[in-house]
Amino acid sequence: MQKKSGNTGKVVTFGEVLMRLSPSENRKMRQSNSLNFFFGGTEMNVAASLASFGLNVQHVTNVSNDHVGDAAISSMRQVGIDVSAVKKVDHPLGIYFLEPGSGMRASVIAYNRLHGSFANITPEDVNWDEVFHECDYFHWTGISPAISEGAYQTLREGLKLAREKGITVSADPAYRSNLWKYGKNGKEVLAELTGLSNIFIGGVNEINEILGTDFGFEEKEFIAASKKLQQEFPTIEKVFDKVRTGVSASWQKVYGRAWTGERYLTTAELEITDVVDRIGTGDAYAAGILYGLRHFEDQHTLDFANAACALKHTILGDANLVSVEEVQEIVDGSTGGRIKR
Amino acid sequence: MQKKSGNTGKVVTFGEVLMRLSPSENRKMRQSNSLNFFFGGTEMNVAASLASFGLNVQHVTNVSNDHVGDAAISSMRQVGIDVSAVKKVDHPLGIYFLEPGSGMRASVIAYNRLHGSFANITPEDVNWDEVFHECDYFHWTGISPAISEGAYQTLREGLKLAREKGITVSADPAYRSNLWKYGKNGKEVLAELTGLSNIFIGGVNEINEILGTDFGFEEKEFIAASKKLQQEFPTIEKVFDKVRTGVSASWQKVYGRAWTGERYLTTAELEITDVVDRIGTGDAYAAGILYGLRHFEDQHTLDFANAACALKHTILGDANLVSVEEVQEIVDGSTGGRIKR
Amino acid sequence: MQKKSGNTGKVVTFGEVLMRLSPSENRKMRQSNSLNFFFGGTEMNVAASLASFGLNVQHVTNVSNDHVGDAAISSMRQVGIDVSAVKKVDHPLGIYFLEPGSGMRASVIAYNRLHGSFANITPEDVNWDEVFHECDYFHWTGISPAISEGAYQTLREGLKLAREKGITVSADPAYRSNLWKYGKNGKEVLAELTGLSNIFIGGVNEINEILGTDFGFEEKEFIAASKKLQQEFPTIEKVFDKVRTGVSASWQKVYGRAWTGERYLTTAELEITDVVDRIGTGDAYAAGILYGLRHFEDQHTLDFANAACALKHTILGDANLVSVEEVQEIVDGSTGGRIKR
Amino acid sequence: MQKKSGNTGKVVTFGEVLMRLSPSENRKMRQSNSLNFFFGGTEMNVAASLASFGLNVQHVTNVSNDHVGDAAISSMRQVGIDVSAVKKVDHPLGIYFLEPGSGMRASVIAYNRLHGSFANITPEDVNWDEVFHECDYFHWTGISPAISEGAYQTLREGLKLAREKGITVSADPAYRSNLWKYGKNGKEVLAELTGLSNIFIGGVNEINEILGTDFGFEEKEFIAASKKLQQEFPTIEKVFDKVRTGVSASWQKVYGRAWTGERYLTTAELEITDVVDRIGTGDAYAAGILYGLRHFEDQHTLDFANAACALKHTILGDANLVSVEEVQEIVDGSTGGRIKR
Amino acid sequence: MQKKSGNTGKVVTFGEVLMRLSPSENRKMRQSNSLNFFFGGTEMNVAASLASFGLNVQHVTNVSNDHVGDAAISSMRQVGIDVSAVKKVDHPLGIYFLEPGSGMRASVIAYNRLHGSFANITPEDVNWDEVFHECDYFHWTGISPAISEGAYQTLREGLKLAREKGITVSADPAYRSNLWKYGKNGKEVLAELTGLSNIFIGGVNEINEILGTDFGFEEKEFIAASKKLQQEFPTIEKVFDKVRTGVSASWQKVYGRAWTGERYLTTAELEITDVVDRIGTGDAYAAGILYGLRHFEDQHTLDFANAACALKHTILGDANLVSVEEVQEIVDGSTGGRIKR
Amino acid sequence: MQKKSGNTGKVVTFGEVLMRLSPSENRKMRQSNSLNFFFGGTEMNVAASLASFGLNVQHVTNVSNDHVGDAAISSMRQVGIDVSAVKKVDHPLGIYFLEPGSGMRASVIAYNRLHGSFANITPEDVNWDEVFHECDYFHWTGISPAISEGAYQTLREGLKLAREKGITVSADPAYRSNLWKYGKNGKEVLAELTGLSNIFIGGVNEINEILGTDFGFEEKEFIAASKKLQQEFPTIEKVFDKVRTGVSASWQKVYGRAWTGERYLTTAELEITDVVDRIGTGDAYAAGILYGLRHFEDQHTLDFANAACALKHTILGDANLVSVEEVQEIVDGSTGGRIKR
Repeated sequence: MQKKSGNTGKVVTFGEVLMRLSPSENRKMRQSNSLNFFFGGTEMNVAASLASFGLNVQHVTNVSNDHVGDAAISSMRQVGIDVSAVKKVDHPLGIYFLEPGSGMRASVIAYNRLHGSFANITPEDVNWDEVFHECDYFHWTGISPAISEGAYQTLREGLKLAREKGITVSADPAYRSNLWKYGKNGKEVLAELTGLSNIFIGGVNEINEILGTDFGFEEKEFIAASKKLQQEFPTIEKVFDKVRTGVSASWQKVYGRAWTGERYLTTAELEITDVVDRIGTGDAYAAGILYGLRHFEDQHTLDFANAACALKHTILGDANLVSVEEVQEIVDGSTGGRIKR
Repeated sequence: MQKKSGNTGKVVTFGEVLMRLSPSENRKMRQSNSLNFFFGGTEMNVAASLASFGLNVQHVTNVSNDHVGDAAISSMRQVGIDVSAVKKVDHPLGIYFLEPGSGMRASVIAYNRLHGSFANITPEDVNWDEVFHECDYFHWTGISPAISEGAYQTLREGLKLAREKGITVSADPAYRSNLWKYGKNGKEVLAELTGLSNIFIGGVNEINEILGTDFGFEEKEFIAASKKLQQEFPTIEKVFDKVRTGVSASWQKVYGRAWTGERYLTTAELEITDVVDRIGTGDAYAAGILYGLRHFEDQHTLDFANAACALKHTILGDANLVSVEEVQEIVDGSTGGRIKR
Repeated sequence: MQKKSGNTGKVVTFGEVLMRLSPSENRKMRQSNSLNFFFGGTEMNVAASLASFGLNVQHVTNVSNDHVGDAAISSMRQVGIDVSAVKKVDHPLGIYFLEPGSGMRASVIAYNRLHGSFANITPEDVNWDEVFHECDYFHWTGISPAISEGAYQTLREGLKLAREKGITVSADPAYRSNLWKYGKNGKEVLAELTGLSNIFIGGVNEINEILGTDFGFEEKEFIAASKKLQQEFPTIEKVFDKVRTGVSASWQKVYGRAWTGERYLTTAELEITDVVDRIGTGDAYAAGILYGLRHFEDQHTLDFANAACALKHTILGDANLVSVEEVQEIVDGSTGGRIKR
Repeated sequence: MQKKSGNTGKVVTFGEVLMRLSPSENRKMRQSNSLNFFFGGTEMNVAASLASFGLNVQHVTNVSNDHVGDAAISSMRQVGIDVSAVKKVDHPLGIYFLEPGSGMRASVIAYNRLHGSFANITPEDVNWDEVFHECDYFHWTGISPAISEGAYQTLREGLKLAREKGITVSADPAYRSNLWKYGKNGKEVLAELTGLSNIFIGGVNEINEILGTDFGFEEKEFIAASKKLQQEFPTIEKVFDKVRTGVSASWQKVYGRAWTGERYLTTAELEITDVVDRIGTGDAYAAGILYGLRHFEDQHTLDFANAACALKHTILGDANLVSVEEVQEIVDGSTGGRIKR
Repeated sequence: MQKKSGNTGKVVTFGEVLMRLSPSENRKMRQSNSLNFFFGGTEMNVAASLASFGLNVQHVTNVSNDHVGDAAISSMRQVGIDVSAVKKVDHPLGIYFLEPGSGMRASVIAYNRLHGSFANITPEDVNWDEVFHECDYFHWTGISPAISEGAYQTLREGLKLAREKGITVSADPAYRSNLWKYGKNGKEVLAELTGLSNIFIGGVNEINEILGTDFGFEEKEFIAASKKLQQEFPTIEKVFDKVRTGVSASWQKVYGRAWTGERYLTTAELEITDVVDRIGTGDAYAAGILYGLRHFEDQHTLDFANAACALKHTILGDANLVSVEEVQEIVDGSTGGRIKR
Repeated sequence: MQKKSGNTGKVVTFGEVLMRLSPSENRKMRQSNSLNFFFGGTEMNVAASLASFGLNVQHVTNVSNDHVGDAAISSMRQVGIDVSAVKKVDHPLGIYFLEPGSGMRASVIAYNRLHGSFANITPEDVNWDEVFHECDYFHWTGISPAISEGAYQTLREGLKLAREKGITVSADPAYRSNLWKYGKNGKEVLAELTGLSNIFIGGVNEINEILGTDFGFEEKEFIAASKKLQQEFPTIEKVFDKVRTGVSASWQKVYGRAWTGERYLTTAELEITDVVDRIGTGDAYAAGILYGLRHFEDQHTLDFANAACALKHTILGDANLVSVEEVQEIVDGSTGGRIKR
């Protein structure tokens, strides 16, 4: 595994921590009387994965000032995330209820997040200057600015300071249309924030949303879209996309592709025939990209991210609790399930 | 989804409610120290599915006069079944112990039902006239008359009154040879009761059992058998069959076919590669037929029933706890397991 | 058990249905990875207990339009509550997280309810006229008007119509100071609504809150307070109080006392040395009062309510899922735990 | 611990093996979706306890010829019971559903046993001659002859042969009035079988049932009753009684008393303030008696049996899975719960 | 099923009993707070499978003299293994922690066994002469001599006596390189012990390890290797190999091949698309061989062993708890998962 | 709560981290098929409690280099312990199996620790100089030097350096006679190490073990013993004792007493009638002392420690996961179990 002359500062992530509650044994909610829970949220998932990879990671968020918030903090600490910038406030933690699908039955999510501790965050809650001390990467997604005006403003302040400090910014600016209830135009906001970023984790859909274009799915369309994106937002250096084919909720295929600014790269397709948990697989991909950008060349980065994404499908919960070695074994083709003793 | 000028009365089902007890985590009974339980039984499963589809459904049965019977009633109420004609009697509720199979290992069922509350039912226990108030569909299966003389007589009285009242009767007259211990000739009884029915849910096997014929599996044999059935039992309007191929206990394929009295219809085959629960899939099909007959044309009915049957393989327990919308999505081809947020 | 010439109409309750989530095995939230859940809420608890007593009960509320709301409805149906006036709306169901105490460690509750489906209820959501058809009792508590302006207005409309229709109204007007965030003065509101009620379930604390008085705990103070309450609110016919002594979270003592308008009544103290669940014990008392008012004389009513309250401490979950016979056995002194075969 | 010149042959027990199914966490059946299970039955419980004490024990019964029967056999083997005389037959295993009580709430049992594998036993199913090879103790209870004519006849044949072979017979002839459905007069049968026994495990209630007397509870009444019993049934050598006071389902007190034919003996009362499982405590007492009769003098036997009974209240399931040493520690007063490392 | 003129004596196995601890629901160890446990170990697994096939089997080992050792003995008794030669000693029972894999994620095992009760076994702990009374088969594997000098010496004494007594010895002499910490050369030891054996369960890898050869995988290489093995160790009569292809941890394919001394035999490949438990599948194969050698001709033996191995993938835990009939059904092609009622 | 002019540096603890495995629901090990697990160990328990109190705490130990060790580290991080000095080595983590007692049945522990990762620690594994950076308290117990020569030497080096650096050292030097297998005289070692300490957490038993004296239990004996201890080991400033009375495993009473060098102090006795978990209650006391010494006067310290000890009996697992506020409420007399909303 070829090492790149690496960054050594910490990675900072910003976003909502959600409690995920889901029935076990493929039960529907109304058949169940107990729920498993995990703490997740797209940006925390990236943080957890990076911490599992051994990086120094800090997550910035607000949690509730009660035993649920305590549990959220414990959960972040458990995976090794620095929680020193997590603030406890008098609003409940965001929640989502996941009814996991199986086979042809899709997973269904019900959210309770729009009045929670993160939705109530404001720029006053975060001391970005302190947070960015010895930081060299900052990661954000399109979920945070969609939650509330305060979340958007808080993120924007962070991004602006990150730019000033020369911190590399990665963006996963997916547009989730059923959020964005507080009055802002989501696509415009995502465009604005993409303009403050360096690494774009997304594909033609995301680019089309932001630019108002209608690029198609094919390789050359993806390349054209990426170039167009760089033209509009010159800070963007690279575009990393993930392509998924769903045979069923239990059987998925994924591969990665990228535009490095110079070259088009792609990976082999990995197939997961017995999905354990579909949530957070995109975040696992993003974490793979971030780890790769610090340690590998681009092709290795893309292969690593796709393997991380595929491996996440076998891990229960929101975060990809695997080591660099475990991901690398998938990259190296050890997918036959031989027992390690 | 094209609506048929619909029936608006309630559906009535009649049959044993069984407590199903089964180990979790693929354990064999002797490896386990706890059992999950569900209440089911082929006719109650149809009722539960129809209630989940939003219909007004009443189930007629006897349950035990103890906390197990209370739980059975609670369970029916929970899914929305009208239990006002359920009687509590001093005999234990029927039980079955299911050791769920996996892969090439078959599921194994052990019954304890032949001296239970339903086996002790008699015509005096049911006020059919009251039950059939504002009812326009009645569903029975070949299991009920196989349990005991009393169950047979009770059902027969119901069927005769249903005929008188012009209620549409659907029959699922499977012949289960290891029941029928009380002295009656099962095939003769099923023939008699089929003669009181309008919709036949079954295929060449069931027709052969009842008529003593030996039609083969092929399409034209199925059509010939259906016609012969209608010839013998002129009340039968339509025949709906379900064809299953088992790759393993965990991997099944199903499609439906029908003789509408005028045309042969068939559906695409649906494949379930990760079966959660195989029990009650036939009942899900029957419920799909009943729902379809009230709301759709025949082809849509058949597609809907097959999709319902396939979807049931992903639902834990005996009953198909899904909505019309969830089934329709499968009919419409959304089987890739995309998360619904 | 002496029967009173009884009311035969239904009982209506109004209030929030909350999902309760709590760790098992005495775990703290941060030690746990799964949560048991129940649906409750003070008024639904009363409804569930009355349904278990065999009464016809309807609960009026809004739930979320998702699988959590479906589960809430299923749960109400399961215990036999009429859910025909439950409305599904696009706001999440209220939740509370209970970390159950043990011994000297108190239970701790964290709420997430102030922006939920019930908090968003408005008078337009309830057709009180239809609800009160064939109703002769209506029960409310001080929680509902504390949640939101809409909940207050909806309740007030109901109460006014109930008065017009001559429905007996029971009030459990506890003042919960950490609610009442929407701007109204809680004590004034409770006074207003008490003025529309007939049965007061509460003691000197509740009377003091509403009247601004400072009666003490002793018998004659309780009597004086009750008389004062009747003086201020002439519709109030009877006052039922419940007195609790907590040795620890696991060891509680309860007795009841009442002012019938004419006499002071009291019960023996019942001791619960191994509390299973402390939640909903007051609601069990209220349900005992309501049942008693329909079936018993006042002393029997009070004894029955206190026994119901005590018995609830042995039942897991929010609602007192016991029969009239089970409560009566406690009234009759069968508390030694002899096995019933 | 003083040893008596001991018997070395095996102990034989005869009786139904029941599957016990009960909700966990103090749930009521209708609140639960899973059940713990154990195999028990009064005579098998005695066998299991004796096997845990290190004796050679054989249990004689019929079980179902299915995976439930397999599990029952596995369970007996697990505790070290010789199952070589257990026969598999085509009737379901007997079941009981236990809703465990707590505090003032009593445990409730619902049986499903009257048409099971044991109810269908006949003398042809047991080769008593082979069973009694190298046996020197035989234990029976009043449950077996209450189940069915066949069970009664099978037991009677065993008892007669045991008498012939000079095997010591212990009887626990409790009269359970809600059994005895097959036509025999239970009290007469118990009297007949007591006449074939040597050790009587029971008190004045049991003696009164059998003799039609009405002795009171006091010591001298117990002595008089015992003497009367010996007068009527000269084979009876000793009478061992167990006295229980139930504070609640969770708080019990027990002591033992005996008539040795010559002397009245009694034990200190042991108090169990946190009952884990009340089932099988009488069987634990009986096993203590049987073990004591082989190893100890009478006072030690009585103390040992009472300690075994008390200790069983702390053991989950039907059988007293404790060692002689664990019981002896209670006899010796080590009841303070000091951790053994 | 064609019967061979059979051996009727018992089978003896020797080896460590390990407690296996593993998270459920595909959790990683650090995500879990509870662990399922089973007792296993390669030779005990063979014993358990043979006992489930109905053979008389005795297992020889040391376990810990504590409640873990008690549980291990209970577990062996439960499946019907004779434990009369199991010794309890003052060293902890060996343990392994299994993090079960899924899909492309491999299972990971962490051992704690090198200072346990079995590692401390010495020849003085086993009375081989008594053990071999009425024994006609003895089975050993390459794990036992790898654990400690004492285990090696104890096994060697057993093998030498087995040879003297004419007992058929089967060897599964896999070389596990990460064991063998106590100083002996593993390959030399395995060669020595193979020289005392009659049936070789292993393939070219195992032969190459022992002989220092480098035969390839192909059929003729396998035959040549087998012949070479017989040349070096003339007591070896037959060689049974098992060939596995891992698509993923959840999807495996297996077939068997053998050199009977005269002929090359092979089986159809069986495919397991939903692996429940991969552990002990080789032991299930070995048990199939041992059962077959006593009851079937060689081709049937090989087919039976391969079917047993395949079926074990569907059974939770270490041991193949299936009957001869269940295996034979797979041999006969009933792999479609039809429910057995 | 009166604050003492406080220390602000971190607290360091040193000792083995054990995985605790125990059946749930009061099961005996041989009745169970799953085990709950926690990570604990007397010194880590102190660290966890102090971290829950909000202190900066670092734990020094070796863990296994496998997924069990990973889980141990995660568990320490979760509660907020600094794990930067935890080393991963190629020996298995120590384990103990706890069969929890109930009522008169004692808890039973089986250890597997004498060849584990901590037993293999050597002075080379710890950089004490780095560890003690900004540390002002160091805590040790008598367990660590009892495990192995290496553990003893490593601890002694730490203690000597702590003395040099003026760090306050607290000792909990219980003599556990069934450890000390490696050849050293335990009492002599404990005396030596006590001579390097400042705070003695122990009573007359511990003093008698170390000094070879035979002081009695009474107050004046305790004072005399404490004075004698100070005479022998002049560095000892204060002696804190904890007195326990066990009514049963489920019912315990505790109070504290101390010799401050000048005064005898004692607390009220606290009673726990429903013990959830008895393990780690002494460690909770020690943590209370350490916290108190930094924040309170002596009497408050003693009251706080006793309350912490009592509260721990209500917490599942080894560590006292409670806040300072929760303990203080017990000190303030809020033990009645009122629900906190």
